[in-house]
Amino acid sequence: MNGYTVYKTQVNPKSVSLNDRIIRVGWDNGEQSDYHFLWLRDNCHCDECVTSLSKEQVFEICDVPFDIKPLSVELSKDNMINIIWDYKSHKSSYHPAWLKQHCYSQEAREKRNLKYKIWDKKLIEKSLPLYEYQDVMNKDEILLSWLYDLRDYGISKIVNVKNKLNEVQKVAQRISFIRETNFGIVFDVISKKSANSAAYTNLKLPLHTDLPTRELQPGLQFLHCLVNDASGGESILVDGFKIAEYMREKHKDEYKALSTLPMSFYNKDKNSDYRFVSPMIISNDKDEIVEIRMANFLRGPIDIDGKDMESFYNAYRLFILLTRDEKFQFYHRLNQGDLIVFDNRRILHARNSFDLKEGERHLQGCYVDKDELLSKIRILEREII
Amino acid sequence: MNGYTVYKTQVNPKSVSLNDRIIRVGWDNGEQSDYHFLWLRDNCHCDECVTSLSKEQVFEICDVPFDIKPLSVELSKDNMINIIWDYKSHKSSYHPAWLKQHCYSQEAREKRNLKYKIWDKKLIEKSLPLYEYQDVMNKDEILLSWLYDLRDYGISKIVNVKNKLNEVQKVAQRISFIRETNFGIVFDVISKKSANSAAYTNLKLPLHTDLPTRELQPGLQFLHCLVNDASGGESILVDGFKIAEYMREKHKDEYKALSTLPMSFYNKDKNSDYRFVSPMIISNDKDEIVEIRMANFLRGPIDIDGKDMESFYNAYRLFILLTRDEKFQFYHRLNQGDLIVFDNRRILHARNSFDLKEGERHLQGCYVDKDELLSKIRILEREII
Repeated sequence: MNGYTVYKTQVNPKSVSLNDRIIRVGWDNGEQSDYHFLWLRDNCHCDECVTSLSKEQVFEICDVPFDIKPLSVELSKDNMINIIWDYKSHKSSYHPAWLKQHCYSQEAREKRNLKYKIWDKKLIEKSLPLYEYQDVMNKDEILLSWLYDLRDYGISKIVNVKNKLNEVQKVAQRISFIRETNFGIVFDVISKKSANSAAYTNLKLPLHTDLPTRELQPGLQFLHCLVNDASGGESILVDGFKIAEYMREKHKDEYKALSTLPMSFYNKDKNSDYRFVSPMIISNDKDEIVEIRMANFLRGPIDIDGKDMESFYNAYRLFILLTRDEKFQFYHRLNQGDLIVFDNRRILHARNSFDLKEGERHLQGCYVDKDELLSKIRILEREII
Repeated sequence: MNGYTVYKTQVNPKSVSLNDRIIRVGWDNGEQSDYHFLWLRDNCHCDECVTSLSKEQVFEICDVPFDIKPLSVELSKDNMINIIWDYKSHKSSYHPAWLKQHCYSQEAREKRNLKYKIWDKKLIEKSLPLYEYQDVMNKDEILLSWLYDLRDYGISKIVNVKNKLNEVQKVAQRISFIRETNFGIVFDVISKKSANSAAYTNLKLPLHTDLPTRELQPGLQFLHCLVNDASGGESILVDGFKIAEYMREKHKDEYKALSTLPMSFYNKDKNSDYRFVSPMIISNDKDEIVEIRMANFLRGPIDIDGKDMESFYNAYRLFILLTRDEKFQFYHRLNQGDLIVFDNRRILHARNSFDLKEGERHLQGCYVDKDELLSKIRILEREII
């Protein structure tokens, strides 16, 4: 019903009652849910309100009176809730599992809220999500488990990946299409003579997120190690949410500065000139940290009120110093056949400088957006769970 | 200097003075600018602080003392401002045009703020930006003018476009690469038997933005008309910013509801299940409206606190009714050879139903993100202005 998702019935309605523009459903597990008349009318699933062609809604709520109300509400033998409305005697019918799934009580909404697994060095060394290439490529239940880990830890490693050019793209396509950028669809992290990014040199790269100069930083970053015979070049990964939470707890003023004062990010090249302005720490309306945006080497001149300049720099310095603190750092060397994937809008990554005298170093990378990760999880859940 | 942009000198410094951790520059046009010591040190352009390879900054501000200060400040004969710092006697040199360009006084920041040209039916019928295909494809100064119009009006029309499949992609690539979605790189708007979107039927589509189910709605939408011999199918375009401004002025409570209460957007298909939650009207920290997110046919069940449900629906109904008001609507029929481009995060678009008895109807479309538009403008400005 309602498109593609099958809602499994776990509880059944025992009673329905009307209560000041609300239908209250009592469930047989003792819980109850309230649904507003307008919400119910708006979510009518009938063939007149939802086109069978694309399963999209053609009904628009402004085409019924604001004070619309039921003429009758009935709980059927098969546990459907059936309503006849006072306007045009329109009939709506709701499946109990669909209703329960979309209950908007505070408790139900709280339960639906995702919780990240935030980590420091100690935790991630113990519990880094580790996957076999063949499993990720061939088994959907392993794929789903990998995607949950990516969503929750923001990091994972796949081992024994086929040592082939563009294999990274095939792994990423297990989720969806690639997010193209000015660096192409697949980018080669290799020391180049005419580098248009510090990534393409053998320099040390401090902890950063990729492309903070874009309005939407790429969601997932994939890095596949094809060869790493150079000395140095170790990867360092830090959970930006952990740093931000630490600041919120121990350095309130600095946290406030970085979560309100906008940072400038610039990336100028021969054929592109990207700029974006945003606080480094981004939180939602529930004050949950949802994104980190940071790359000192892509910092543009800070463009804020002069009176805030000193507190901005004070906080910015602290953030960088915290990223350098080993207790937050997951230190790791990528070897041939390793593929690391991480949430680029949460996990900061860095690379030590390397020396090419002893051998080559070649990684390939690509990006997939977070929309695609979450969509793929829902599709697999439809099929597996 | 500082990478690629050439800063032209319009004014020259007349004086420099030190003032409580700030260097004050007096310009020969009577203006003055204040620069904080930390800001200046952070923006040192020397070869030690900025790698010559990619012109990215390797210096990190936490590696100098917080109370760093100049040992000397000098205004040179060629108008450079030269500083020797008390830490490691580091030398920094600033070009006056670069400094002036990045002055962060309230006045300078206000001047840099872009102002949209908001429109209703009357205004846009008089001043729809109209371009010739050959000019946009071949002349960079016309390209730049077209991009300014897209940025400011959020809409433009190109006529006499080559009547060829995928030509829309070539026009879009005058800006940059295409934003791929689950509908592909180029999508065909044509009535299909097994439609996975109402767009691919001959149904009326109410006013909406495309892909509000994605975290980042596509920035620019391109629609190229290859054939339109069917009757009906007219396009309607509405400036969502105008509607939002109108609500803010005349219906404060409804404006507040739609700019704070999150709307749910769902798009379920066989292989994808996209969902996103966001207020319909999005404004920045200066309370400027920056985005509209709206498609009733992609609305998911609203998931907000029960006490807000009635005021949400009251405001949502009003918004839809306002989009239906002709005084806001630009009514327009796309003919063969026309290509309409609009800011998909601002301009709502709709289509009347059409009847295929009299002929075919085929549009091709694609998306380009706003980052790419703004980057291309900067690149052309480097070359032309």
